Amino acid sequence: MRRTIVAAITGATVLTASCIGICGAGEGQTDPAMRETLSRIRVAAINSDWAWRELARLTDEIGPRLSGSPGHAAAITQVADAMRALGARVTLQPAKVQHWVRGEERAELVRYPGRPDGLTQRLHLTALGGSSATPPSGLEAPVIVVRNFDELKAHAADVRGKIVLFDSHFDQHLADNGHAGEAYGQAGEYRFRGPSEAAALGAAAALVRSIGGADFRLPHTGLTRWKEHQSPIPAGALAAEDADMIVRLAAAGQVSMKLVLTPQTLPDADSANVIADWPGTDLPDEYIVVSGHLDSWDLGTGATDDGVGVIGAAGVIQVLQQLNLHARRTIRFIGWTNEENGSRGAKAYFDSVSAKLNAQCAAIESDDGAGRSLGIVAAVTKDSLPTLHPVADALSPLGATVIEPREGEVGADIEPLQTAGVPGFAPLVDSRHYFDYHHTAADTLDKVDRANFYSQIATMAVLAFYLADLPDCLPRVPVTR
Amino acid sequence: MRRTIVAAITGATVLTASCIGICGAGEGQTDPAMRETLSRIRVAAINSDWAWRELARLTDEIGPRLSGSPGHAAAITQVADAMRALGARVTLQPAKVQHWVRGEERAELVRYPGRPDGLTQRLHLTALGGSSATPPSGLEAPVIVVRNFDELKAHAADVRGKIVLFDSHFDQHLADNGHAGEAYGQAGEYRFRGPSEAAALGAAAALVRSIGGADFRLPHTGLTRWKEHQSPIPAGALAAEDADMIVRLAAAGQVSMKLVLTPQTLPDADSANVIADWPGTDLPDEYIVVSGHLDSWDLGTGATDDGVGVIGAAGVIQVLQQLNLHARRTIRFIGWTNEENGSRGAKAYFDSVSAKLNAQCAAIESDDGAGRSLGIVAAVTKDSLPTLHPVADALSPLGATVIEPREGEVGADIEPLQTAGVPGFAPLVDSRHYFDYHHTAADTLDKVDRANFYSQIATMAVLAFYLADLPDCLPRVPVTR
Repeated sequence: MRRTIVAAITGATVLTASCIGICGAGEGQTDPAMRETLSRIRVAAINSDWAWRELARLTDEIGPRLSGSPGHAAAITQVADAMRALGARVTLQPAKVQHWVRGEERAELVRYPGRPDGLTQRLHLTALGGSSATPPSGLEAPVIVVRNFDELKAHAADVRGKIVLFDSHFDQHLADNGHAGEAYGQAGEYRFRGPSEAAALGAAAALVRSIGGADFRLPHTGLTRWKEHQSPIPAGALAAEDADMIVRLAAAGQVSMKLVLTPQTLPDADSANVIADWPGTDLPDEYIVVSGHLDSWDLGTGATDDGVGVIGAAGVIQVLQQLNLHARRTIRFIGWTNEENGSRGAKAYFDSVSAKLNAQCAAIESDDGAGRSLGIVAAVTKDSLPTLHPVADALSPLGATVIEPREGEVGADIEPLQTAGVPGFAPLVDSRHYFDYHHTAADTLDKVDRANFYSQIATMAVLAFYLADLPDCLPRVPVTR
Repeated sequence: MRRTIVAAITGATVLTASCIGICGAGEGQTDPAMRETLSRIRVAAINSDWAWRELARLTDEIGPRLSGSPGHAAAITQVADAMRALGARVTLQPAKVQHWVRGEERAELVRYPGRPDGLTQRLHLTALGGSSATPPSGLEAPVIVVRNFDELKAHAADVRGKIVLFDSHFDQHLADNGHAGEAYGQAGEYRFRGPSEAAALGAAAALVRSIGGADFRLPHTGLTRWKEHQSPIPAGALAAEDADMIVRLAAAGQVSMKLVLTPQTLPDADSANVIADWPGTDLPDEYIVVSGHLDSWDLGTGATDDGVGVIGAAGVIQVLQQLNLHARRTIRFIGWTNEENGSRGAKAYFDSVSAKLNAQCAAIESDDGAGRSLGIVAAVTKDSLPTLHPVADALSPLGATVIEPREGEVGADIEPLQTAGVPGFAPLVDSRHYFDYHHTAADTLDKVDRANFYSQIATMAVLAFYLADLPDCLPRVPVTR
């Protein structure tokens, strides 16, 4: 899941209004043959169980797929083999990826106000990707709680040698009201930048309150970033309950913690994007990219982040194969490597096509969880929006009629393409509960509702085919940044 | 939380009907002075923050309180000191308690259908109380999945040397509809008896699917029981997600697991019930017991099981102290030791009073979680029910007007008293979500809603005072078992 803002519309809203934003009714009469074809694609997508079986293999048999791990390599093999079996033209595009390995992780409160003699309190936490290790026997230090960067700055003189806890909260109310991505972006700032800012002030370690649902003592991992030439410090995410307990105790006096984190950053590992082309009839050298990412965090089995995205995108090819349909342009599935902690796959692909960017007609990425599709997010020029109405028309039996215009990035892996002006798309997904499970051990197959998953595949398949069969590619999107 | 059936009424039901079961309106006119007194007690209970502060100390400062642990001892000290500070007459009643200590716990799937080379799958599990240890390096064995005891019997010849997984499911639908205790009782059979039945057939180890909410990869611990003279085997609870994954994989062929559990059963430890008497004016040697249990499982901080029960019962004394109220009989707070894995506290108390059981006028126990009070559960003779109407009247401003008659046990610690005919009571608690957290690491202070907690204290305080001030004790309850 990318970090920037996603203003998703909730299912509840859509149930009461047929369409929000720009809608697909009426305008832009679709050619009847195309209408019929898109309808067949939608029906096939919601009735094929190929994707479910592949997702079960990816999550139950392989499981976690952090970059550089054996599971990651196995996932690349599985998906490449599956695409070859469909008859797609498969390429493995090499990329060196970061190889961070989680070690031991434990912590306990060793001193705090009111503590009875001899007692310690075990804490539930997980290391953040990119964390360095404590000494093997751990480090012990006082905790300093700050709610935001301003408070960090105000306490700058006190930070050296301490464990900084960023008591930043995920705004579930915002998420419940259709702005899950925005809520993630707000709290995510502290996970991405907090440890680095604390390290710059000499902190011994940095912790954040886990980002997301806060009810089940579940730590949420994710990447943290360091400044150039900065030495990483140990960095972790506490379960919300543990962070809250420390905040309560710290209100009464000094809290000290013992922290053991033993992750390792190994040399970069060989990896690859899986590229599978479903050739176009007239313009085979022009591409509509449809994609998700193959890697996942290591705590769960990455079913919702991003099993559904990568297998859903693969499912687009399966649907077209089943219907024996080829559009004018080539539809290119990409299973991205290394989205979670480096985006090296995105960079490798962009570098490989940057000399011929006009051949990249449009790019779709699915990476917003397993909720049902409400339509599409479209980062296109304003004038292009009416051209998309036939997509909404074709998806109306699924209720996925919203076309939500977006400025800027709609998927982390297609961001370099978008930045170069390529129109970008994503399914518009109901993400209200995505962050309950995001980057946790509980991101597992049972969190995927099959009908919702299929609605995303139908959305991408209809959109990809339609874009691939347009007389002309949509206009480039001027870069406003 | 006790294991037998609790047919709790949901809040939702009560909101649409003013009263279910026997209701308190009209019948049995209350003496106006008593009505006024009960009203003052209710108001004081829902406005005192003493109990919240004590609960925060018990959970944040002490935390887990498994019998024999330092936390358990600290809890006894905290509660005894708090009751002394209120001016109650405090006795520590010695009891030797079981002393089981959790060790390392981890497991992985090492062979399963479809497994890519070199991969294993980490499983999330926890040892059950009473489990024996595997060898320190673990045991590796095939898994045999059975859904119930009939299937175990049908596969009796295949069990030897294997790890038996009981794929029994908690019926959340039942829980959602007011029968959480019944759902717990059904699934609980496999946790209580499953490992013992598997051991009798020569199983190497036994696992159950965790009992309760199944969404957050959270293992639920709890006691398992062994037959007399039976050697325990390693026994654990898998997170629901892990159990489900094994069931899916096992459908395609043999699954083998490596299991490491290193708990120890230490010699019995010294412990005590905390007894605090709030003396009666006329009949100080007759007692109304109001109680909860001091021990908890070791994964969470036991806020809902049974921090709210034991501190809520203590809060009854605090309310009476604050109002300077004494009833005709003595109101006796008991903080039970060792409810979770031995009930040695219940036995010690019963043994101490068995020669003068008539002095035990009634017994109340709170151990059904932190939901709001809907009224009372009353294990009394049918003819006694109208006598309780003034209690429901007094609680009606809280909407806690239900008097639910019950046959049999209403609390594990008061069961010996009930079995001897003593009328038994409990707050009737909305338990729909209790088992989401029950016996897990997520049973923490944030799961307690203050207003709901206070509604339970008000219920027990009003009930205890009323019973303690009746002209005569309610009639004994004939034992039907």
